[in-house]
Amino acid sequence: MSATKLVVDAMGGDDAPSVVLEGSAAAVEHNPDLEVILTGPADVIEPFAAEHDRITAHPTTEVIAMDEHPAEAVRNKKDSSIVVGCRLVKEGEGDGFFSAGSTGACLAAATIVMGRLKGVKRPGLVSVIPSPQAQTVICDLGANADCKPDYLVQFATMGSVYAQVVLGVENPRIGLLSIGEEDTKGSEFVLECNKLMHEQVPGFIGNAEGRDIALGGFDVIVTDGFTGNVALKTYEGLGSALLSGLRTALTANTRSKIGASLCMSGINDLRAQLDPDAHGGAQLLGVQGVCMVGHGNSNAKAIENGLLISANAVEQKMTERLADLLDEGE
Amino acid sequence: MSATKLVVDAMGGDDAPSVVLEGSAAAVEHNPDLEVILTGPADVIEPFAAEHDRITAHPTTEVIAMDEHPAEAVRNKKDSSIVVGCRLVKEGEGDGFFSAGSTGACLAAATIVMGRLKGVKRPGLVSVIPSPQAQTVICDLGANADCKPDYLVQFATMGSVYAQVVLGVENPRIGLLSIGEEDTKGSEFVLECNKLMHEQVPGFIGNAEGRDIALGGFDVIVTDGFTGNVALKTYEGLGSALLSGLRTALTANTRSKIGASLCMSGINDLRAQLDPDAHGGAQLLGVQGVCMVGHGNSNAKAIENGLLISANAVEQKMTERLADLLDEGE
Repeated sequence: MSATKLVVDAMGGDDAPSVVLEGSAAAVEHNPDLEVILTGPADVIEPFAAEHDRITAHPTTEVIAMDEHPAEAVRNKKDSSIVVGCRLVKEGEGDGFFSAGSTGACLAAATIVMGRLKGVKRPGLVSVIPSPQAQTVICDLGANADCKPDYLVQFATMGSVYAQVVLGVENPRIGLLSIGEEDTKGSEFVLECNKLMHEQVPGFIGNAEGRDIALGGFDVIVTDGFTGNVALKTYEGLGSALLSGLRTALTANTRSKIGASLCMSGINDLRAQLDPDAHGGAQLLGVQGVCMVGHGNSNAKAIENGLLISANAVEQKMTERLADLLDEGE
Repeated sequence: MSATKLVVDAMGGDDAPSVVLEGSAAAVEHNPDLEVILTGPADVIEPFAAEHDRITAHPTTEVIAMDEHPAEAVRNKKDSSIVVGCRLVKEGEGDGFFSAGSTGACLAAATIVMGRLKGVKRPGLVSVIPSPQAQTVICDLGANADCKPDYLVQFATMGSVYAQVVLGVENPRIGLLSIGEEDTKGSEFVLECNKLMHEQVPGFIGNAEGRDIALGGFDVIVTDGFTGNVALKTYEGLGSALLSGLRTALTANTRSKIGASLCMSGINDLRAQLDPDAHGGAQLLGVQGVCMVGHGNSNAKAIENGLLISANAVEQKMTERLADLLDEGE
């Protein structure tokens, strides 16, 4: 097997470049078939690459900041670590791209520079939402605030392939996010989607509700990017508020601190079950190559996870499988 | 002050009528100015009313089940506990109506039988979403799956009055649920809403994101009923999965059980901070009278809370305040 080559944006994330470099070194250490090509300022990445096997440097002169307008930044900063990263994948230098930088800029660069797969109406942002009771893939998590019903049919295919590759689920159970399990419940848009999904999506088992994300019952939940992003952030917000509330509750007084020390391992397990970094971020599916966007606040472990998951997607030929499935509809 | 009279659907909820009767007795015990009029089968409510001061019986012969089509059921079952309950409010026999039965049927009955307040485009379903870090009012939670931008302007008024009455916030900070805090982020629909809210809603401080529901920053978050319902159920699902995961973590072995016993009071506090029953359910605002719908799985305490909160809404003249504010736009 030839090596898997990932292009990594050294400048992406709140704690870049240090955590990106550290995470990249850990990932190539962990996966002996992985090679990393770093994009970023020469003085940052060249000395680091010189010291590490299977890490090379491709210097760039520009950086896209988190608050820049994504499409404009991609147009104007042709030598940025994100745009060059996507171009290297397009040109076959790399098999996939990873960045913990601006999600919007990564989506724009991947769509414009790598290009869509043939037949894809809109690329979709996909990830696994972890809970103590379930692992649910959601698509779209925010790439498309406005959708047409046939986009969601393609999101179902994307989510399904993602669940096969990342979760190892053979025949994913696919749901449509709505406000009642009956086919007649939902907005006009969702009613149309429901009808199309019944007709065109093998594996579609009906409407899902918000609570099913954490409680399980579906391997893949399909939705427009607006609703998916609201659900994701609602989820993350409550997870964060509860873990922080738990910390307060457990350190309220000496008695509870002693108690907490005795049950800390279970609580750490619970925290790990909710950890968004375990899945390294979200992948943009429907473009010509693997493209993963990590959380802005990623630490080195999250970067490492993101690279290993991206490498797995390359090795399992996720893009090729999607290309075959999504081209059929055209 | 004259007594506050609430009409209560004795047959609403998974554990009706027992928990409804128990909760009603507790509520009149707690609030000496409260009178309860029960609707339901004579053999259930008459003996109970005979034994309790300030509880009277208004027998009805029909019951609307949870799975019936709301509008049809309201049309066909004119002598149901829900339809009669709303009629008693319309006719001035009661000041407000409470049911833990079918949300859809209660919304339909309240809208059709009580009628909308003058100038109201669509009644909105409102509640407080509790978290360890914030108390956030959301409107609409699901009464209107499809909305026009001007509905959301009215939801802002409803949520604002609700936050004043229920949370005691003098000048509520109002947000619009979107997928980025900048005014330029969101779906086409939300962009239109954002513009209108800036022009017409005093107290509007900008877009909120899903995570703000649990983490705070807004007293009121306005959204269409589809998104609001998805966010609410996503929230409830994760809350439930985490509390259940916490129970598992704390009882994993003898060591953690001992630890858990020492910090149980803090954990119970945390559970209480998340308890949806603390707010008794959701209120439908924009109709001619107070109308509250409890959770289907309400226990007696939740029913009691719902009645006390409904009584507070009557005593604070929530409907009259809304009538004044919402009529202005016409």
